[in-house]
Amino acid sequence: MEQQLHFITLATHDLDDARSFYQDGLGWSPALDVPDEVIFYQVAPGLLLGLFRADKFAEDLGLGTAPAPSGVTLSHNVGSREEVHDVVAAMARAGGVLLKEPQESAFGGIFHAAVRDPNKIVWEIAHNPGWHVLDDGTVSIS
Amino acid sequence: MEQQLHFITLATHDLDDARSFYQDGLGWSPALDVPDEVIFYQVAPGLLLGLFRADKFAEDLGLGTAPAPSGVTLSHNVGSREEVHDVVAAMARAGGVLLKEPQESAFGGIFHAAVRDPNKIVWEIAHNPGWHVLDDGTVSIS
Repeated sequence: MEQQLHFITLATHDLDDARSFYQDGLGWSPALDVPDEVIFYQVAPGLLLGLFRADKFAEDLGLGTAPAPSGVTLSHNVGSREEVHDVVAAMARAGGVLLKEPQESAFGGIFHAAVRDPNKIVWEIAHNPGWHVLDDGTVSIS
Repeated sequence: MEQQLHFITLATHDLDDARSFYQDGLGWSPALDVPDEVIFYQVAPGLLLGLFRADKFAEDLGLGTAPAPSGVTLSHNVGSREEVHDVVAAMARAGGVLLKEPQESAFGGIFHAAVRDPNKIVWEIAHNPGWHVLDDGTVSIS
């Protein structure tokens, strides 16, 4: 199996809330939007984030109930501590809920915050001085 | 906020099981491995998959209990239906549990299967004829 991810799909209860947050609030553009089913946003080279209506997500996996995302965090790195504050403020204006104020992390020497989107997807916004991406896309982390 | 994901982090109960599955079983290589804390695998240009010990994951977000991932699926695309079968077989040999036999999907006209890793992380293995990645990393999906 190649060491490669192509989609991350999250159970999403309200696609209108998702559009309002990511598109109207944060200025993102969808790669594909199938109303009442799924929205895809490209979030890295060759990688889509899929917000899949929770009941269809459950049906697809044969689950009895439609879950909200749990045990998963999406992280977005920025270049400075000030940008952590700026992005967190933009997410709050867009309808996000602050879970963790910008602060030093307990692990890894980073400065970060956590924000929940309207569908309970948790984002970490972080300034991580040990994070570097080489020209070929290889990540160096220390 | 840039439309960019840098890490996806999943609550992981047993890092030894994760190493056994991804490294010994599937031949992956870690970008960083901090024993008893976290393992990172690079899974796209500029993107790491972080398997973070579940109790530390919970502590980091101020959660009372350590969750298993729920409401999230990771998808891996392959070039043919035959490869779907091959990758699913490799994951089963590595210790994965088959959740959904290779079959036509209910949505999107793809051929796919679902496999749970030893830490309950759900992977979809799919052949999706509408999936294309351009040279600059832009995904085209129909």
